[in-house]
Amino acid sequence: MKAAVMRDGAFYVEDLPTPVPGPGQVLVKTRACGICGSDLHLFKHAKQIVETARGMGAAVDDLSRDLVLGHEFVGEIVAFGSDTQGALKPGDRVCSVPFLLDGQEILPIGASKKTSGAYAEFLLLSEAMLLKVNDDVPDAAAALTEPIAIGVHALNKARLQGDEASIVIGCGPIGLAIIALLKARGAKTIIASDPSTKRREIAQRLGASSVVDPTSESPFTTLAGQAPGKPVVVYECAGVTGLLAGIVLEAPKDTRIIVAGICPGEDKLMPMVAITKELCIQYVSYYTPNEFAEALDLLSRGALDWEPMITGRVGLDGVSGAFAALMNPAESHAKILIEP
Amino acid sequence: MKAAVMRDGAFYVEDLPTPVPGPGQVLVKTRACGICGSDLHLFKHAKQIVETARGMGAAVDDLSRDLVLGHEFVGEIVAFGSDTQGALKPGDRVCSVPFLLDGQEILPIGASKKTSGAYAEFLLLSEAMLLKVNDDVPDAAAALTEPIAIGVHALNKARLQGDEASIVIGCGPIGLAIIALLKARGAKTIIASDPSTKRREIAQRLGASSVVDPTSESPFTTLAGQAPGKPVVVYECAGVTGLLAGIVLEAPKDTRIIVAGICPGEDKLMPMVAITKELCIQYVSYYTPNEFAEALDLLSRGALDWEPMITGRVGLDGVSGAFAALMNPAESHAKILIEP
Repeated sequence: MKAAVMRDGAFYVEDLPTPVPGPGQVLVKTRACGICGSDLHLFKHAKQIVETARGMGAAVDDLSRDLVLGHEFVGEIVAFGSDTQGALKPGDRVCSVPFLLDGQEILPIGASKKTSGAYAEFLLLSEAMLLKVNDDVPDAAAALTEPIAIGVHALNKARLQGDEASIVIGCGPIGLAIIALLKARGAKTIIASDPSTKRREIAQRLGASSVVDPTSESPFTTLAGQAPGKPVVVYECAGVTGLLAGIVLEAPKDTRIIVAGICPGEDKLMPMVAITKELCIQYVSYYTPNEFAEALDLLSRGALDWEPMITGRVGLDGVSGAFAALMNPAESHAKILIEP
Repeated sequence: MKAAVMRDGAFYVEDLPTPVPGPGQVLVKTRACGICGSDLHLFKHAKQIVETARGMGAAVDDLSRDLVLGHEFVGEIVAFGSDTQGALKPGDRVCSVPFLLDGQEILPIGASKKTSGAYAEFLLLSEAMLLKVNDDVPDAAAALTEPIAIGVHALNKARLQGDEASIVIGCGPIGLAIIALLKARGAKTIIASDPSTKRREIAQRLGASSVVDPTSESPFTTLAGQAPGKPVVVYECAGVTGLLAGIVLEAPKDTRIIVAGICPGEDKLMPMVAITKELCIQYVSYYTPNEFAEALDLLSRGALDWEPMITGRVGLDGVSGAFAALMNPAESHAKILIEP
């Protein structure tokens, strides 16, 4: 099979052996796979990520070489391994949380050298974790299940009471997913902040009540004008080192800050400022299987606007160019889908 | 009246004019006043605190000169100003949240140059905020209302479900208050960490299930042995710069960290570590008036063990010595009461 292999900061389309499903596994033909911000992060910072993980005591591979990324996928069942139930049929379209049960191991799909991600024509999934995609749901929507699930999880961790004003900092796919989900919940004040004109446009189409270019105005100034005194939740979805420190300085009293943006390095926070304002910083990561299923359900029911998020589609040979476009500081893209 | 006046890092017992109660105010004779960690903090870092507050846009006085501290007090009503109701009588003992309503201003008692705190023979309180202390409640217990209220607030912010393991880092008065409150709630696993032998002893008397000397063992190691897999709440009550960074590294997944310790400077946190473990950092400060009343009620009902917290009593001329003892690294004290 063809796959886009990441090796030392570049992609190479190569022929790899088509994987063979083991017990409880199914072989799936990739129909679409999103490029995730964490893929970009791994592309840029693989060595540092591995060092940090090892520093925390985790035994991880050197992910900078010969990795097949891709964990935001929808695929079509091709073949079943042994010990499978066959409740779904070949040709059925499926999503799954990006983890493969392999004997005693749980492999992160798209972040392990022991199994390929969906930047490839085929991949292995665990039958027990498959979710069927209804016929009327486009591939592109189903491929967004994973980033939407991250948004569902972030909102659950935000413990929303229903009357909060929201500031979403960073309108990449996760920030946009959060905006769409807040809109679907009926939130009235959603202030989206991103330096990219294009991303601000998308944020507005998805339901932001105001958009702000943070290079010329603080979203907290906008907030103070629009919803003075309202409880505030800030979603940090940019993953830029130093940004959290600025939020701590600017946020009003009792603000809950949901940190979904993955950033390397250290944040230097002023505890006296945070204490005086009784801030709450909730770091979030991933989602539960139920939240993943909820995300697919929301997309299936048409409860969310998702189309504006998709800003490009490429084949495997377009992965290099797509990464270059996504890393461009002008950031005119949100989600680019790979259709192998 | 006599007062212990703080001036440029020293205390001077001086004669000040006895204050005259204005509209809505009462004159109270101080019966006991605790020395608070924040008093020590102000004593050591007054200039830096003022700079930080000014940096946040607050208009504050230069607190390093001619300040009468003291906001953990119990007193006895002596005289009423105009526009008072007189529901309580001269001789009644009272507590109050440490704020004085003065015309349009709300003055922080013990942290303002416009009104004296309780390191003095007399102070002014607002009649509207007085809480009567029952006859059978000792002065020493009533003087602990304020630090206990901080503990009540910290526990409320911790959103306890009832089955959490607790780690209390720093067994000064706030850490000890939290331990006593957790014990009163029926918490089973309360691990207290402090380098002082004396403070660990007090922690154990107040209800800690284990005590740890952090210079030789991590409380997280103790936790892993005693309550593996239990949800964890960590209370940072030491206020030492750098401590939070260590908690972020050591805490298990989903730990809620309640930061009650006031520390100057910057915390350098690793966001990737905090995200991976989905930590929640809740900074806390003060209490609500209801929480303050709840603290006095708990003390009045004998629901809390408080006596082990009191480790010394001095007159106004003993304030200098008490501060020196409390700042000694051996930290053999918890709460020292001033009885002017």
